[in-house]
Amino acid sequence: MDFDGFFQNALDGLREEGRYRVFADLARRKGEFPHATRYTENGEQSVTVWCSNDYLGMGQHPKVVAAMKEAIDRCGAGAGGTRNISGTNHYHVLLEQELADLHGKESALLFTSGYVSNWAALGTLASKIPGCIVFSDALNHASMIEGIRHSKAARVIWKHNDVADLRAKLAAADPKAPKLIAFESVYSMDGDIAPIKEICDVAEEFGAMTYLDEVHGVGLYGPRGGGIAEREGLMHRLTVIEGTLGKAFGVMGGYIAASTALCDFVRSFASGFIFTTALPPALAAGALASIQHLKQSQFERMQHQDRVARVRARLDAIGIPYMPNPSHIVPVMVGDAAKCKWLSDLLLDNYGIYVQPINYPTVPKKTERLRITPSPLHSDADIDHLVLALSSLWSRCALSRAVA
Amino acid sequence: MDFDGFFQNALDGLREEGRYRVFADLARRKGEFPHATRYTENGEQSVTVWCSNDYLGMGQHPKVVAAMKEAIDRCGAGAGGTRNISGTNHYHVLLEQELADLHGKESALLFTSGYVSNWAALGTLASKIPGCIVFSDALNHASMIEGIRHSKAARVIWKHNDVADLRAKLAAADPKAPKLIAFESVYSMDGDIAPIKEICDVAEEFGAMTYLDEVHGVGLYGPRGGGIAEREGLMHRLTVIEGTLGKAFGVMGGYIAASTALCDFVRSFASGFIFTTALPPALAAGALASIQHLKQSQFERMQHQDRVARVRARLDAIGIPYMPNPSHIVPVMVGDAAKCKWLSDLLLDNYGIYVQPINYPTVPKKTERLRITPSPLHSDADIDHLVLALSSLWSRCALSRAVA
Repeated sequence: MDFDGFFQNALDGLREEGRYRVFADLARRKGEFPHATRYTENGEQSVTVWCSNDYLGMGQHPKVVAAMKEAIDRCGAGAGGTRNISGTNHYHVLLEQELADLHGKESALLFTSGYVSNWAALGTLASKIPGCIVFSDALNHASMIEGIRHSKAARVIWKHNDVADLRAKLAAADPKAPKLIAFESVYSMDGDIAPIKEICDVAEEFGAMTYLDEVHGVGLYGPRGGGIAEREGLMHRLTVIEGTLGKAFGVMGGYIAASTALCDFVRSFASGFIFTTALPPALAAGALASIQHLKQSQFERMQHQDRVARVRARLDAIGIPYMPNPSHIVPVMVGDAAKCKWLSDLLLDNYGIYVQPINYPTVPKKTERLRITPSPLHSDADIDHLVLALSSLWSRCALSRAVA
Repeated sequence: MDFDGFFQNALDGLREEGRYRVFADLARRKGEFPHATRYTENGEQSVTVWCSNDYLGMGQHPKVVAAMKEAIDRCGAGAGGTRNISGTNHYHVLLEQELADLHGKESALLFTSGYVSNWAALGTLASKIPGCIVFSDALNHASMIEGIRHSKAARVIWKHNDVADLRAKLAAADPKAPKLIAFESVYSMDGDIAPIKEICDVAEEFGAMTYLDEVHGVGLYGPRGGGIAEREGLMHRLTVIEGTLGKAFGVMGGYIAASTALCDFVRSFASGFIFTTALPPALAAGALASIQHLKQSQFERMQHQDRVARVRARLDAIGIPYMPNPSHIVPVMVGDAAKCKWLSDLLLDNYGIYVQPINYPTVPKKTERLRITPSPLHSDADIDHLVLALSSLWSRCALSRAVA
């Protein structure tokens, strides 16, 4: 078999569908977020990033940066091993305590990424609990889907955010089977939010565990940045809260917070936890500083919401259609993969505005979009520039405007 | 169902088998490796680490540390997104070029860890190539096994490092089926090395792709640290070389090096690559500095081999049995989980020597061991202290000595 020919054909298929991914080659500039340098074949270009998941700009916060550098000075670069074999650093221990406290849980457990935390925790829980049935929201993230699939447990998909459908499916299942409900708080591509309370209600009714992915909520919502569940006073009702250190906290890594027994169980049986090098001490130290800051400070969250509201108001004023939602994500809908990429390319090349086109399989076909994520550090001038550029391109490519 | 009770029972089972893992809570001390601070309930203790996979001490090398701090000063903490959505940093681009060059391949692709690189690359190749049969060495690492399992491709296990068995199994398979042979160079727990040339020979005979995991070889072997395959002049014969940035290179992350078409294919289809936050710029910068240093410098590799030889000679002199092998790993065999943990505890508490006990499932039952990894930075005095402590404990617990 001509393996490279096979790979090339598959890649050509992506190109023909207009969904071959070209990565923007960026250098973030500390102190100037959301502005960055883009490297191109023709040299360097200054751009404004409008699609980062460093939602609050904490990735350049002086406390985070200082904590990372101090940890490097103390401990060096890497952890030097798996958590079990010389890789547990005191910063990991402190960070796990901080995360448990953030979510009001007995314990927390760190992973190398949010992806791995979902994959490993769901994969382990669902495979090791005999006869477990997983009830998975239809729009759950790839990492949750892969973890559930990996477990080989029975899986029931319920309609997205539809508690009546979830309830009907729980009621139809074997009453004696252990049940696990997996869902997210903020869904990253549409920005809608799960009815967490109602899901907890039906979970209790049927004795099911709940597993809530808060990766797009932690740091951003709740008086201490504990996420949507904290804001709604529901953290104690969830069995597992999963989160990331790589979005609002600005660093990298993932975690679960839950009972000590559950965390210890995953710690002891999850292949994706056991057999991998631990996070570098500096990442744990940076995340610790970020979480501690956002537990105290409301400024970033308030300013973030202010910027999101301003972007929406300006888009409304010029009739650029976006998907309404109660979160911080502004999906400007295009509905065509090639057009979405064309818009993104023009924004970048002609206006220095970087918004990556979001195409299938990240979102369903015909719902291609520009997913805009305002941060507290986008200025009024940045917003004006974005909105005027979009307005001009909307006219040029005859995209329909919202009816006022 | 009483979920926490279920978890607790499972954990009690591990405790009864003597294989419940207790993590040593360490603070590495930059500039003093392999010496570290251990946090205990009774305060702090200075220990000598003898089980790190920071094999060359690069995790505290001045060039690596300086590169990381410089990248933090330039770019801040995290990457801010997935590789596709604002998370590609110029350091990632440079590091991928450096890795391709290291292994003499057209391209390379970064992952968040070595575990994820194996899981995602093997999982994607084996699932997307129609009818692919994976021929997997019996002692492959958990991350490879999980990736192959995840792919749902047909899998044939061949006897560990046994080319005749591999050949027989290739010959017995459908001649038309695409074939992928997955194996490691240095096996981490026994320290034995695969017959790479002979495996490439049979791969060519049957038109199979080869996938070589070099995580315990990169940085350590070959004139530029390209691994065992570089040392043996075989890199060009392998389809994929997979490696880690978290062991000899001292940082964190994983990668594959291969043809441009293959890397682009994995980049475009691997869920575990696409849907996860990119490595922080500082990790990429640190790894880049580490690789560049070890491409030029032979000192660390020579000193490493010298220390390994000295440890073995001293163990020989006092009759402590270890598994002989042609690599840098010194497995001191104990063969009993409880005794292995007891020895490790005494070494740590009474001698300040930290060697984690290696128990099932990392190694088969009855082959429990102390896995000793000498580094270039272990002094003669460190070695003397280790050997005398082992000799004393061997007498105390009446473990048999090797016959001289």
